[in-house]
Amino acid sequence: MEKIETYRFTVEPFHVDFTGHLFLGVLGNHLLNAAGRHSHNRGWGIDQLNEAHYTWVLSRLSIELTETPAQYEHVEVETWVESVMKLFTERNFLIRNADDGRVYGYARSIWAMIDTTTRQPSNLLEVKNGDILQYALTAEEKPCPIAKHGRIRLPAGAQPVRTVHTYYSDVDINGHINSVKYIEHILDLFPRRQFEQQRIRRFEIAYKIESYMGDELTLYCEPGADGSQIEIRKHVGSPEKPAGESIVLAKVIWE
Amino acid sequence: MEKIETYRFTVEPFHVDFTGHLFLGVLGNHLLNAAGRHSHNRGWGIDQLNEAHYTWVLSRLSIELTETPAQYEHVEVETWVESVMKLFTERNFLIRNADDGRVYGYARSIWAMIDTTTRQPSNLLEVKNGDILQYALTAEEKPCPIAKHGRIRLPAGAQPVRTVHTYYSDVDINGHINSVKYIEHILDLFPRRQFEQQRIRRFEIAYKIESYMGDELTLYCEPGADGSQIEIRKHVGSPEKPAGESIVLAKVIWE
Repeated sequence: MEKIETYRFTVEPFHVDFTGHLFLGVLGNHLLNAAGRHSHNRGWGIDQLNEAHYTWVLSRLSIELTETPAQYEHVEVETWVESVMKLFTERNFLIRNADDGRVYGYARSIWAMIDTTTRQPSNLLEVKNGDILQYALTAEEKPCPIAKHGRIRLPAGAQPVRTVHTYYSDVDINGHINSVKYIEHILDLFPRRQFEQQRIRRFEIAYKIESYMGDELTLYCEPGADGSQIEIRKHVGSPEKPAGESIVLAKVIWE
Repeated sequence: MEKIETYRFTVEPFHVDFTGHLFLGVLGNHLLNAAGRHSHNRGWGIDQLNEAHYTWVLSRLSIELTETPAQYEHVEVETWVESVMKLFTERNFLIRNADDGRVYGYARSIWAMIDTTTRQPSNLLEVKNGDILQYALTAEEKPCPIAKHGRIRLPAGAQPVRTVHTYYSDVDINGHINSVKYIEHILDLFPRRQFEQQRIRRFEIAYKIESYMGDELTLYCEPGADGSQIEIRKHVGSPEKPAGESIVLAKVIWE
């Protein structure tokens, strides 16, 4: 079995923004599909793991693009596993034009595996006798020339900029707010003018805890020298946690 | 050239709701893609029409399902033109399982063509010398056994139930709130319990006028004996139109 899986898609009319370029959330969705296909074809798909009471949990996703795919373009995503540690595995992506091969960019992701009965992290080197190791490619064998995930930390005293209610369309099959919807809510913080004048060069997101249909999400956004930092907190309204719990951290770097 | 075009898709993990069934908005997106492919392959695609200063405008969409496709199922959409009138054309869809052929349901849509320079409706029987007529199939040749679009009218005095702000992720390449996003906003009106206990048998939507990024949408919902009727009005805030303008009408029938 090849270590790299290639996944193809076309940039559909309803998947582009008003500038005619692919929504980053939709690209995220395609990357997750590519990851799912790669895992499934190697016996590590969520459907296969569920039977053994395991599931994958996405922890980090960083996408960096020198060009954003445009409407009707054919895109090819390569995905592979870069490393496997006890509690995390790194999965990378190359995103290129399927017709002329020009590279749009790369992405990096980090995943954990949890035991669905105990909700505790599982040792990836022990699940299926560490079978996943045979698919790993070193950074020398298959480079992913973008920076690893950075540290995202909002300054103390960051002010909330928007509250978002969550509904039916926000949640996935597990009843969790879906990873792609968070990306939409984050990009919706920026005004039209910004998308007209600039392009997102890099987008990073860290998923910390789950939120559920009906949760009220409070978004914090702090502009900084090297990009906007965003935090999404769940309003729990308890006296112990008046500011809620941190669900998602993200960073948007424009050019 | 065949009169019927077949379009295939797989029900992806991020495209199912918490019950594991395809979001109706995503199905709508696939139907519109199928329509786009059918038109394009016959010289009537939006990209081809744009050069001649014409474009398609979706006016009505009604979807009726006896079963909603579930996660990972392979779906096949057949689409064809049922009739062509001067100002409108009817396009139908059959939605079935690609593996065993069982029919999930059908959909009907109505489209107008407008001149992009004048924004006025065009005579479909004259554009390209009525070339579109050669692709039409009568209801006897290719049946679509669901009711035509009904009349949707909210009772006088219907009260607003939610106001939705529109952002970057809501708009399409033309800067209009996209047809699929309206479906999401409409279904988001219903509580989790309703989706747990019932299934949407029929969904109808009528697109009346465009709205744009930044518009504030006010949703009205009136339950009735044969389904909930929804209206989306654009808050224009002018003294002449204090209740705004009607953008979308919809009807949701549960079973």
